[in-house]
Amino acid sequence: MKDKQFLMIPGPTPVPESVLLAMAKHPIGHRTPEFSAIVKEVTEDLKWLFQTNEDVFIYTSSGTGAMEAAIYNLVNPGDKVLCLIIGNFGERWAKIAASKGAIVEKLEVEWGKAIDPRALKKVLDADTNKEIKFVTLTHNETSSGVTNDVQALNDIIQTHGSISIVDGITSIGAIPLAMDKWGVDVVVSGSQKGFMIPPGLAFLACSKKAWKAYEQCKNPSFYFNFGAYKKNLEKDTTPYTPAVSLIIGLHTAMKLLREEGLDNLYLRHARLAAGLRSAVRAMGLKLFVEDNEIASNAITAILPPDGISVADIRKTLKNDFDLVVADGQGQLKGKIFRMGHLGFASERDMIAAVGALEMTLQKLGYKTNSGAGTSALISTMMEL
Amino acid sequence: MKDKQFLMIPGPTPVPESVLLAMAKHPIGHRTPEFSAIVKEVTEDLKWLFQTNEDVFIYTSSGTGAMEAAIYNLVNPGDKVLCLIIGNFGERWAKIAASKGAIVEKLEVEWGKAIDPRALKKVLDADTNKEIKFVTLTHNETSSGVTNDVQALNDIIQTHGSISIVDGITSIGAIPLAMDKWGVDVVVSGSQKGFMIPPGLAFLACSKKAWKAYEQCKNPSFYFNFGAYKKNLEKDTTPYTPAVSLIIGLHTAMKLLREEGLDNLYLRHARLAAGLRSAVRAMGLKLFVEDNEIASNAITAILPPDGISVADIRKTLKNDFDLVVADGQGQLKGKIFRMGHLGFASERDMIAAVGALEMTLQKLGYKTNSGAGTSALISTMMEL
Repeated sequence: MKDKQFLMIPGPTPVPESVLLAMAKHPIGHRTPEFSAIVKEVTEDLKWLFQTNEDVFIYTSSGTGAMEAAIYNLVNPGDKVLCLIIGNFGERWAKIAASKGAIVEKLEVEWGKAIDPRALKKVLDADTNKEIKFVTLTHNETSSGVTNDVQALNDIIQTHGSISIVDGITSIGAIPLAMDKWGVDVVVSGSQKGFMIPPGLAFLACSKKAWKAYEQCKNPSFYFNFGAYKKNLEKDTTPYTPAVSLIIGLHTAMKLLREEGLDNLYLRHARLAAGLRSAVRAMGLKLFVEDNEIASNAITAILPPDGISVADIRKTLKNDFDLVVADGQGQLKGKIFRMGHLGFASERDMIAAVGALEMTLQKLGYKTNSGAGTSALISTMMEL
Repeated sequence: MKDKQFLMIPGPTPVPESVLLAMAKHPIGHRTPEFSAIVKEVTEDLKWLFQTNEDVFIYTSSGTGAMEAAIYNLVNPGDKVLCLIIGNFGERWAKIAASKGAIVEKLEVEWGKAIDPRALKKVLDADTNKEIKFVTLTHNETSSGVTNDVQALNDIIQTHGSISIVDGITSIGAIPLAMDKWGVDVVVSGSQKGFMIPPGLAFLACSKKAWKAYEQCKNPSFYFNFGAYKKNLEKDTTPYTPAVSLIIGLHTAMKLLREEGLDNLYLRHARLAAGLRSAVRAMGLKLFVEDNEIASNAITAILPPDGISVADIRKTLKNDFDLVVADGQGQLKGKIFRMGHLGFASERDMIAAVGALEMTLQKLGYKTNSGAGTSALISTMMEL
């Protein structure tokens, strides 16, 4: 049907109507008391969502911009950065660090696995001269649908004395990340994910320990400069013209998130993910990540049945059911499809999506009992 | 009145309703054929507006992001960059170049003046070893309301063999800048200006000559990387998730700009600016830039009458007439107020604004004949 399209990709994620309408108003001036009042409020909201008392900077950029901000404000050329890589976005940290002239060391595992804390400990224990100043890691790896145990990994990083830099782009608002409590140094995220607004904003929070590295950084980025953002945030503003409409949308979205509450947010994402995983198994399909312990609550990667292509599944879902799911990325392109259940996603959305997937598979010749997926989905969601 | 606010600041500028509504739709996936078709079309539209056959990159950032992109992709630490400075935004180039480790030389004039091409020639003639690799300049200086003669300045830069980097943030779409015809190397701009959409996108076009400098740049930015944008533009996409809604808004806005046509766009801005300048003079106020030859067609800086503060003028315009104008920036804060007539601004807007300014001044105790400003405005606009 025309105008019925629904996104179940890792981002952009669906946006509530109240947010769309808030953004559809004429932009207001960004150097006005009205706008500063909004910046002040959303900053408090962001601190709540990031579970931190540190400032949260709002960048006008994609999430990758905030990743660049983290590296370019902290890392000096020649610094050693250990990158924990479990997929495409973990690899991105390595590329950004290399572009800043860092010496990059990698701890890499097969896509679909998480980093084993013992493996990290081994690498850091071997760094007897404490040369590894920074460790980058991905909380939720969007390319494979795997969640790293940030708390355990961060403990090891902190014990070693390195600075932890965490990609929370598809985890903030969906999967617990208690920045201050866990003692994480830097967390970045992006607007078109758990924040329920369109792409265009990115966020960064930085611990006092990491701030010291910023103060020793020789050529920090100008556009993403921590100091400039901090100084302006004291006046409830940004150093350069921000994406005003998106910040106004964020202001509205944050009210919805606050109302739901952190625990409920995390639980909802856990419920949708567990339900989908049950449904996939009940339909006789294979999950790319079989281990429930490390499977993402934000995005689920699914293998197509033998003889049916990812392309055909995506095409049928889109053409016949107006449902957009993602292909695999990089080495997984054409091998998996990924369903996002991140942000403004409800149980009703999940039921509709699983039903549409059942019908799609049947249309493509796969034999499954009608309702097998939706029954399993509903049973599991009822339990959580 | 509630909900009547109208922006006459240098940006954000007013946004047409059709653009607001286009942006209020649910975001679509950025890796879809539908979105690529839009990227392809807007890229062609941008090339038309920039008057270039080179690629125009779309960054999700403020205009300052595109300024950083220009410097960080071209300039190596130790390179000499000559910055032509006539105000706050000219100074920004110098700061960005310094943050990249460049050796910055400045040719600076008093705010309110333009760069004299002869002065530039003298500086470049003195550079007998051709050490000045790059020259940065501001087309339209937003802080003072002065327009540099980019064509004349660029001729001198090209003769010397340097690469010209032009801030066209408040000039593209408002003041003629024929990138290819004039042989300008790099032009950057921002969405919340002549493009008639909210802030959040920035644009950059780069000549083949400048591209060679990019190829020799040792640590180009990752997020703003020219190569990544070029490679992705060949597939009608962007390397990282763009501000989808803003690009969709741009797609709609560009149709409006195309329909009006380049000559009419430039003429409209010239007409509004000339009208306002006449009105200011007729009301007995002083223009910050008296010289019509260098006065900006996008923004007009006005001195308050003796005994009346900029703050009171701005407050009355806002509270009683729902009209937002800008204060001076930096050294001009509280000394001038600036009225933007850039982007989606019409003759009717101008008449209303000048009338509101007349009433504001009278309310604040300034003696002027009612209608003196609007008469002069109308007469001048009728002539052009």
